[in-house]
Amino acid sequence: MLQHRRRRKEHRPPPGEPPGSLSPAPYARPTHLHLLAYDADRLVEHESPDVAEIEARIRGVGNVWIDVAGLRDVDKIRAIGQHYGLHPLTLEDIVQVVQRPKVDIYEGYLFVVLRVPRLEKGLVTEQLAIVLGHDFVITFGERPSECFDAVRSRLTHVHSRMRSRPVDYLAYALIDALIDACFPILERYGELIDELEEEVVERATDGLVSQIHVLRRSVMELRRALWPLREVLNTLTREGTPYVQHETRVFLRDCSDHVSQLLDMIEIDREVTATLLDLHLSSLSARMNEIMKVLTIIATIFIPLGFFAGLYGMNFDPDVSPYNMPELHWRYGYFYSLAVMATIALGMLGYFWAKGWIGGRWRRGGRGARERD
Amino acid sequence: MLQHRRRRKEHRPPPGEPPGSLSPAPYARPTHLHLLAYDADRLVEHESPDVAEIEARIRGVGNVWIDVAGLRDVDKIRAIGQHYGLHPLTLEDIVQVVQRPKVDIYEGYLFVVLRVPRLEKGLVTEQLAIVLGHDFVITFGERPSECFDAVRSRLTHVHSRMRSRPVDYLAYALIDALIDACFPILERYGELIDELEEEVVERATDGLVSQIHVLRRSVMELRRALWPLREVLNTLTREGTPYVQHETRVFLRDCSDHVSQLLDMIEIDREVTATLLDLHLSSLSARMNEIMKVLTIIATIFIPLGFFAGLYGMNFDPDVSPYNMPELHWRYGYFYSLAVMATIALGMLGYFWAKGWIGGRWRRGGRGARERD
Amino acid sequence: MLQHRRRRKEHRPPPGEPPGSLSPAPYARPTHLHLLAYDADRLVEHESPDVAEIEARIRGVGNVWIDVAGLRDVDKIRAIGQHYGLHPLTLEDIVQVVQRPKVDIYEGYLFVVLRVPRLEKGLVTEQLAIVLGHDFVITFGERPSECFDAVRSRLTHVHSRMRSRPVDYLAYALIDALIDACFPILERYGELIDELEEEVVERATDGLVSQIHVLRRSVMELRRALWPLREVLNTLTREGTPYVQHETRVFLRDCSDHVSQLLDMIEIDREVTATLLDLHLSSLSARMNEIMKVLTIIATIFIPLGFFAGLYGMNFDPDVSPYNMPELHWRYGYFYSLAVMATIALGMLGYFWAKGWIGGRWRRGGRGARERD
Amino acid sequence: MLQHRRRRKEHRPPPGEPPGSLSPAPYARPTHLHLLAYDADRLVEHESPDVAEIEARIRGVGNVWIDVAGLRDVDKIRAIGQHYGLHPLTLEDIVQVVQRPKVDIYEGYLFVVLRVPRLEKGLVTEQLAIVLGHDFVITFGERPSECFDAVRSRLTHVHSRMRSRPVDYLAYALIDALIDACFPILERYGELIDELEEEVVERATDGLVSQIHVLRRSVMELRRALWPLREVLNTLTREGTPYVQHETRVFLRDCSDHVSQLLDMIEIDREVTATLLDLHLSSLSARMNEIMKVLTIIATIFIPLGFFAGLYGMNFDPDVSPYNMPELHWRYGYFYSLAVMATIALGMLGYFWAKGWIGGRWRRGGRGARERD
Amino acid sequence: MLQHRRRRKEHRPPPGEPPGSLSPAPYARPTHLHLLAYDADRLVEHESPDVAEIEARIRGVGNVWIDVAGLRDVDKIRAIGQHYGLHPLTLEDIVQVVQRPKVDIYEGYLFVVLRVPRLEKGLVTEQLAIVLGHDFVITFGERPSECFDAVRSRLTHVHSRMRSRPVDYLAYALIDALIDACFPILERYGELIDELEEEVVERATDGLVSQIHVLRRSVMELRRALWPLREVLNTLTREGTPYVQHETRVFLRDCSDHVSQLLDMIEIDREVTATLLDLHLSSLSARMNEIMKVLTIIATIFIPLGFFAGLYGMNFDPDVSPYNMPELHWRYGYFYSLAVMATIALGMLGYFWAKGWIGGRWRRGGRGARERD
Repeated sequence: MLQHRRRRKEHRPPPGEPPGSLSPAPYARPTHLHLLAYDADRLVEHESPDVAEIEARIRGVGNVWIDVAGLRDVDKIRAIGQHYGLHPLTLEDIVQVVQRPKVDIYEGYLFVVLRVPRLEKGLVTEQLAIVLGHDFVITFGERPSECFDAVRSRLTHVHSRMRSRPVDYLAYALIDALIDACFPILERYGELIDELEEEVVERATDGLVSQIHVLRRSVMELRRALWPLREVLNTLTREGTPYVQHETRVFLRDCSDHVSQLLDMIEIDREVTATLLDLHLSSLSARMNEIMKVLTIIATIFIPLGFFAGLYGMNFDPDVSPYNMPELHWRYGYFYSLAVMATIALGMLGYFWAKGWIGGRWRRGGRGARERD
Repeated sequence: MLQHRRRRKEHRPPPGEPPGSLSPAPYARPTHLHLLAYDADRLVEHESPDVAEIEARIRGVGNVWIDVAGLRDVDKIRAIGQHYGLHPLTLEDIVQVVQRPKVDIYEGYLFVVLRVPRLEKGLVTEQLAIVLGHDFVITFGERPSECFDAVRSRLTHVHSRMRSRPVDYLAYALIDALIDACFPILERYGELIDELEEEVVERATDGLVSQIHVLRRSVMELRRALWPLREVLNTLTREGTPYVQHETRVFLRDCSDHVSQLLDMIEIDREVTATLLDLHLSSLSARMNEIMKVLTIIATIFIPLGFFAGLYGMNFDPDVSPYNMPELHWRYGYFYSLAVMATIALGMLGYFWAKGWIGGRWRRGGRGARERD
Repeated sequence: MLQHRRRRKEHRPPPGEPPGSLSPAPYARPTHLHLLAYDADRLVEHESPDVAEIEARIRGVGNVWIDVAGLRDVDKIRAIGQHYGLHPLTLEDIVQVVQRPKVDIYEGYLFVVLRVPRLEKGLVTEQLAIVLGHDFVITFGERPSECFDAVRSRLTHVHSRMRSRPVDYLAYALIDALIDACFPILERYGELIDELEEEVVERATDGLVSQIHVLRRSVMELRRALWPLREVLNTLTREGTPYVQHETRVFLRDCSDHVSQLLDMIEIDREVTATLLDLHLSSLSARMNEIMKVLTIIATIFIPLGFFAGLYGMNFDPDVSPYNMPELHWRYGYFYSLAVMATIALGMLGYFWAKGWIGGRWRRGGRGARERD
Repeated sequence: MLQHRRRRKEHRPPPGEPPGSLSPAPYARPTHLHLLAYDADRLVEHESPDVAEIEARIRGVGNVWIDVAGLRDVDKIRAIGQHYGLHPLTLEDIVQVVQRPKVDIYEGYLFVVLRVPRLEKGLVTEQLAIVLGHDFVITFGERPSECFDAVRSRLTHVHSRMRSRPVDYLAYALIDALIDACFPILERYGELIDELEEEVVERATDGLVSQIHVLRRSVMELRRALWPLREVLNTLTREGTPYVQHETRVFLRDCSDHVSQLLDMIEIDREVTATLLDLHLSSLSARMNEIMKVLTIIATIFIPLGFFAGLYGMNFDPDVSPYNMPELHWRYGYFYSLAVMATIALGMLGYFWAKGWIGGRWRRGGRGARERD
Repeated sequence: MLQHRRRRKEHRPPPGEPPGSLSPAPYARPTHLHLLAYDADRLVEHESPDVAEIEARIRGVGNVWIDVAGLRDVDKIRAIGQHYGLHPLTLEDIVQVVQRPKVDIYEGYLFVVLRVPRLEKGLVTEQLAIVLGHDFVITFGERPSECFDAVRSRLTHVHSRMRSRPVDYLAYALIDALIDACFPILERYGELIDELEEEVVERATDGLVSQIHVLRRSVMELRRALWPLREVLNTLTREGTPYVQHETRVFLRDCSDHVSQLLDMIEIDREVTATLLDLHLSSLSARMNEIMKVLTIIATIFIPLGFFAGLYGMNFDPDVSPYNMPELHWRYGYFYSLAVMATIALGMLGYFWAKGWIGGRWRRGGRGARERD
């Protein structure tokens, strides 16, 4: 079951700050660098290098992937930025992890921001920034990303297609891995919806309302994270975009299809959760009707009976006149009173039966409905 | 009646897999090939051939249609792919049967994905991929498709127009057959909606809510399968699209009209199912009002009567003083008490009649409403 | 009052049929032809001619209008088609009367499909196809159209502007007549909505729900018939469309304005019917509140009274001890008990009055609200 | 308070009428002409002139404004039309006062239709047509327009900027005056909404529903009158439109901004009125809960008490056996019974207090909620 | 907690006024001018100068920023306008503080209108106009803006990047500061929504409805203020816009991203507040069910018991015949009657337990549901 997570307090510089000032979020993790330089023949891998070392290590190797995980050490990030000529706004966007997905074209590189959804107790989305240059890819994530491991291990295979292709193919592979990681979340949503649907129809307990609501919010937040991705991939697959080779476009188009699939699924989830609330309300009303029927049947049968019993419990003095409660002295007075009560009770029951409140389905009018059945 | 079908567990490779790796879905059926080569004069038909045989059989015959039904034997599919120069992503999309409808233009062929809806207990949509080359059509379906049989039998007629036309006309005929197969489903939906409408208004039983909900989801899923088809057909009828002849465009435009008709119908179904829930809620409220009216009428008449009866059942001692319940010793005390009760009852009945709760239509105020009638 | 009409079973060929095969709908009416050839000086009119005769009769007269009413005799239609060179898909669309409004541009003619709404018990829309050639107009309707009579009679006047203009002006006149025929339907809708509004607010009877629902569906179906007409008229008034003269465009633009007016009115009707359901629900709730107030007032007054009456109807033996119901032997015991009951009743009434449940308007809290008034 | 106005029966010619036939609406007012010819130096003003006179009077004066108020005398209108070369469709649109706002470009003039909203008991919109030629402006209104008086008096000032500018500036001034006249209506709406909001939250009386509904319809009708105005002003400010000088465009753009402001305000009003109904429903439910709580508290306390009282009112004969109602003969039997009843009553009250139904706020569960507070 | 603020009475000139007439709003504050002229080397700052002085003071300094706070002294504003050649419509828009955000391109300058939201008791948006010329920026605000102070202090630093850049960078910095000031408001909204969500689910008190409503309106008004900003920034970042340097565009694009983030957040807030009302209604219904259950359980148990007690309180005379209430004389009559009542009570309790109304969760049917659990 999902739990509502209060929104993370967003970390922003105060209004009026000059752009390009880097201040890490209070929840930022320590920065780890992972260097991977490769071409078809060679592969250099180095964990957590000094930024200064990078140049030395990758000399002569064609393609470089620097994976920066954790954004607390802004000095390291600034150093990388200076080395690769990143614009101050790019660095600011990297450190302020509240960007929505976008592509910005700068001189010397493409800057892509994505949001990586993760399902903990509720939905969390974290920022991942990709800088794609002519022969380097730098990724900046809030934490080490599990789905990059698969890409990394593919890259270490000598015969991997990725080794012999330019870096934009690596960027594609990373984006693709991130998008694919969204499908399990939507499957989990689908299961939750199916469970809630059953619950609503079967039980309509009180807590369901807030569960539906939390689920609905999670769906909306996932949508928020993925919706701009369409535009991002459109830009990347468009003909004129620099740093993306023609051959890679067909692969990015495939990513784009996946995003459309995801958004289709989200759209359905949104509509279904919206109707779940109506369903719940409807279920509650139906329950209420059931309760009311029981109350009405019991009360309308026994209240008149109670009155009759009370009637003959009155103490009018039969001795004063023969008109005072003569029934009390009838030979079969008691039976007569019981018969009257039985008649009332049976009449009521008959009325309820005719209305369909007891012993069968609810019918509109007695006769017509019975003929139809 | 439709039944809710839990979503089929979608089969996807794990995130980070290289594109183009083919792994069949666990529910994939065994692969059958059906070869049909034809031109205006000749017709070669062969069931389940070896992929290697294809080349031999079709030599010299103008047009080829290979129908691949069932996608378990990925080796066969890969063999066809190699023979016809299909891109790895194409093959991946063929085997991962969760694509949304699309057209991709590759070098050497057009790749069209459709979804074929089928109404079992609920709505199921299955993927059908069509590869349209210069002189061949290859169809990849999850199962043998009934609506292809009609096309196949038309093709076997010597004087069929299809025989003397290029393969894009065959592709059109297949797409047209698939689209036409959607109409009966929508007619079934229409019938279900009509039935539910009547049920809701007449009966408003409890189970209706979930039936409406299931129907609504089915409508939304059909919409999901058909909506992207518009874009697909727009692409196919556009002037610049390769592998589609000018003469075939007018026929594809006709398909496009059909899809628009389908989407119009779906749109109406969507709106109607949406209001059905409101209708149901409204019906439930009306029922509740009815129940409450019965309860109120009975209770408000008999509770005061019961009080009066109880009043004269009190045991205050008339012997102590003449002020203690003198009514009990009146000559017509009993009649007097009955008269009081009758007055109360009639007064109540009159009040309810004036309010229109009994004996006629519900009216707002007594006088004004009566004058209007 | 509108009645819900189950949808007409749509007549379609089975999936996989070749396009252009003509099979009349089972409900098609016998075909009548009405020939009208005219130019500024001459007028030839002929009822129900043989198709073969046409050529002979119109020889030398500039413009021809063939009105085909009823679509059962597909042979006649095919004959006309062959004579005027109509495409097989055009003929198929003419006979399959389920098309949505559209314009198709063929070589030699424009093919326009419209839907003519008619208000019987519910809304029925019938197809009308117009073929506009260089010097001929052919109209294919499901039945003889009343609104064509006015056009025909204008045409028989010698000085009619229409006589001296090319055939596209005739086509315009026909389309205009059809569009104008929609306004009375919308006025009828407006009246129905006004009536329902009053009913809902005044009475909130049970049957209203389904009436609102039926009206809403009728509005949606009219919208479905008219919405694509916008696109049709846009195409016709666009500069490049063949067979439409520049001079006629200004008149078609006028038609287009009328369609926009119609769609505006439909849009308002849609929104109003949507809120009518909410209004109804609200009315039902208000009624329920009224019922509950009555029940609560009566029950909460008399149930405690009943208890008190019952209290002094207990039979504890006063002889055993002076503590057993001494009130029964008080001199003013009866008055005392009556006084207690009256106090309870008046207290309750005062409470209800303070809450505003009786004797005036509903107020939130006693004091503050009274000060505001 | 707004009152619902049944729609004015629209006056239309019967379907099939030739365009350009002028028949005045039955509610049309008598036609008054007001002539105003001006240039920087001269000003000629004449009330209700004969159409024939116009030419004589304006001779030599640069710019002319003819204000036609009231559309009953179609002969006068036709005469003006002939004099200024207006197209028959233009004249028809002028007389049929049901047009939606639009701009039509004719040879020799621009034809602009606006709708002027007026708030009587409900919202009424009347048509105003403006014909803008090279050196003349003709306005056709259903009645004399108050907001034209201000424009007219500005024009009579010798130093008015308007006098020395071409006629399109006059047309702008008229349109601007009409648009500005909409703001007070929206302010009135805003006040009504504020009042209704307070009423709904404070009182939730029955009549509110229909008031909200009427307001909502008025808002929608105002929107209908203003929405197409955006398109009208877009056309007028576009570069290529004839009869509008470049210098006037910047002023028309200002009008366009005002229309956007109006539509923004309408949009908010629409959303707020939509949620008002929900608010009302919610208020009704809250009231119902309050009623039910009172009923439940009273009934669940006194019904068991009543039962106990009734129990000891039974007449089982204590003389037959010591097992028959021995309590009646206990020394403290009466006190014992009173004690039992008090216990029940206090138990119930405690239960209700724990549930938060009495003596404070509603709490979910007794303990947890209390800890939170 | 937000409070609903009645809309500020908008100040508008009467309809028909010539454009360009300046009349200050009644709530306008006195005008303060703040002059700041700067280039890379020099900085001239002057508080509240005479307009005539400006020219003298800034002579020779490259860039000028005049901040006009308070709009009451229209003469000062007109003087500035004349000095910098502002169009009369520009001045009118500056003084009429009801504009929606827009960019107008005039000869000699760009005119940008923004709305600055401020959260007092409710949301207030105030107008800020920015005039951007070749070497000057003039800002017109309704009051001194706090967020400009940060920009001003950055400007006073000698090494500030802003000093050495053209004035459009200053304009960007101002816009950026304003946009950044919106984030805290949205964070406050987010907190309010979180609080309301909890309240709704936990308590569902009556006042929540109007709180939700007020919040919803505030969200809508913020949206109204920010939505047109997208268009404004699109215009500013577009290539052809004058007075904006190419280098500044990348910074404005960053602003544009921030606006998109804001609108995303607003969109989610809108949806969530919309569902909050449904949640509340649902909660109310659930409470009602709870109340009804309690009432029904108590009433349906004790009403029949009360009847039985009343039955044996009847006074039929056992002496008349042995058929009159013989139970009263049975030896164990009392026990028998108590046993009957206990049976009824237990039967009822069992029935309610089976229905799940007591002692556990609500279940649909007794058996099936229990098996599932």
